[in-house]
Amino acid sequence: MKSLPDALRMKSYLKDKKCRKAIIVGAGFIAMEMAEGLRNLGMETAIVHRGILPASRWDKEFAELMLKELDRNSVSFLVNRQVTAIEGGKGSSLRLITNQGDVPADMILFALGVRPNVKFAADMGITIGKSGAIEVNAFQVTNIENVYAVGDCCEVFHRIRKDWVNMPLGDIANKQGRILGGNIAGGIVSFPGIVGAQTFKLFDLEVAATGINESEAESCGYNPVSTIIWGSAIGAVMPGAKKVGIKLVADRATGKLLGAQAIGEMGAVSRINVLSCALWGDMNLDDIANLDLAYTPPFSTVWDVIHIAAQKLRKQI
Amino acid sequence: MKSLPDALRMKSYLKDKKCRKAIIVGAGFIAMEMAEGLRNLGMETAIVHRGILPASRWDKEFAELMLKELDRNSVSFLVNRQVTAIEGGKGSSLRLITNQGDVPADMILFALGVRPNVKFAADMGITIGKSGAIEVNAFQVTNIENVYAVGDCCEVFHRIRKDWVNMPLGDIANKQGRILGGNIAGGIVSFPGIVGAQTFKLFDLEVAATGINESEAESCGYNPVSTIIWGSAIGAVMPGAKKVGIKLVADRATGKLLGAQAIGEMGAVSRINVLSCALWGDMNLDDIANLDLAYTPPFSTVWDVIHIAAQKLRKQI
Repeated sequence: MKSLPDALRMKSYLKDKKCRKAIIVGAGFIAMEMAEGLRNLGMETAIVHRGILPASRWDKEFAELMLKELDRNSVSFLVNRQVTAIEGGKGSSLRLITNQGDVPADMILFALGVRPNVKFAADMGITIGKSGAIEVNAFQVTNIENVYAVGDCCEVFHRIRKDWVNMPLGDIANKQGRILGGNIAGGIVSFPGIVGAQTFKLFDLEVAATGINESEAESCGYNPVSTIIWGSAIGAVMPGAKKVGIKLVADRATGKLLGAQAIGEMGAVSRINVLSCALWGDMNLDDIANLDLAYTPPFSTVWDVIHIAAQKLRKQI
Repeated sequence: MKSLPDALRMKSYLKDKKCRKAIIVGAGFIAMEMAEGLRNLGMETAIVHRGILPASRWDKEFAELMLKELDRNSVSFLVNRQVTAIEGGKGSSLRLITNQGDVPADMILFALGVRPNVKFAADMGITIGKSGAIEVNAFQVTNIENVYAVGDCCEVFHRIRKDWVNMPLGDIANKQGRILGGNIAGGIVSFPGIVGAQTFKLFDLEVAATGINESEAESCGYNPVSTIIWGSAIGAVMPGAKKVGIKLVADRATGKLLGAQAIGEMGAVSRINVLSCALWGDMNLDDIANLDLAYTPPFSTVWDVIHIAAQKLRKQI
């Protein structure tokens, strides 16, 4: 699915062919979103994955909660599967052939990630960065004068990695488009980069992350320390209060925040947004442990999970 | 109401005396919270106010929404009233005598603000600050060696006003208590201060603010500019999406954020928390206009109201 008509075509196909069974190959956040979408259309839905946990950007403890949420919503999750072929089915129209047997389906969706389509650019002599996406500077200019690039096809500066990456997300593309507009309309506007904020919804779960995780931190030359804590998303005695899990990653040498992950039925995205702002401001754990956040029991606890996580991680340094 | 037993006593009184009508004198955030509490107990509830709008910390446009929310929940709001006496009633047990006639009630609650109780401290020679609260340093020490003060009775450093204030809020008291604990247990811990984050719930409304408003900004020597915008709290096409209003105040000379207000049925507190973090990090409008926040339609719009407000205000400078 690369365009809106592709999505509409898929929906029509499911309806016209009276599809009952869908397979998603892959377990990233697009696979998670599609699983919810297909279940909401009433499809029997199975995820077929080469690994054992979904959404590798997130920690094992959080990924296991995603598995529970899939299970609670009757999405099967088939692990350690190598896909070798698609063949015609008997009861269903298709069979997905894997190293652990066949899986019947009326529709099979591959959600295996994206690569920037840069052939056109490369052919005209535009430099492609080591990420495989078009190299731009902060003004969105390529190596060829007056040729700009924005969006999923190009790189973006990651403020925590301190390096250029390809992160094909809609908000980044929009921001780059605005920078481009300013520049081609005669202004001089530069894009200050990203910190890696991202989120997806999985049925009743908010899943979000920002910055970098430990393995990324190590590859960037940091010395990461981390902690996971669970707290109440709002005042624990309030009706409807739910738990939220927070993981913080910081640099041992400087105490600076490097990244965060969050999951829960409420309050995960809002925490990640605060922590994204903290990353933007290059804050350390002492700052975050004392941040002045708006407190009232219907909306928060007197010490927020953010504070508690930062205090706990501070002690590990 | 200064203690939990006071609150329980009030609830018992309402029940035992079969109270039907309650009056709240005052229209600050405690008055708003009490109005909701009393309505939820089934009381006919009236707010009697010397002015015309509630919650003066917030702008007229936002205060008018609070009035609508009170009205929608059948709380009457009597304006321009000077209270002169309380007398015995006829149908009800009490009458509140005002310059515009009497108001009957079974219970009358005064919610007119608080002043720190510092008599004990002043009597022993502890310096009282210009706010009327106990003067402390960042280590929570008073002018007398080994005598500390924390909580509603003492001052706190406001990072945006760059001055000491009295802001009697529970989260600040908790933070100061933790600093004190660190210091009396032999550590050396200082409190980095506050930015003025605060919030209350009014029936279905989230109301929140941080930093300072224009009149405070002027009194602190800033040259404030401001804007109010309305946007969708989550993707506008999502089921259940609600509007959120944001006001930003910035300094014309530096472009730095000075304060923010927000109101709406969802997403007001989460925006104020991000902006509180931005205030903590001394960020300017260019930073805020480009902040990397987690985007997915179930939880946000591709440009968040925070971005749009900062972009709009940036143009005014």
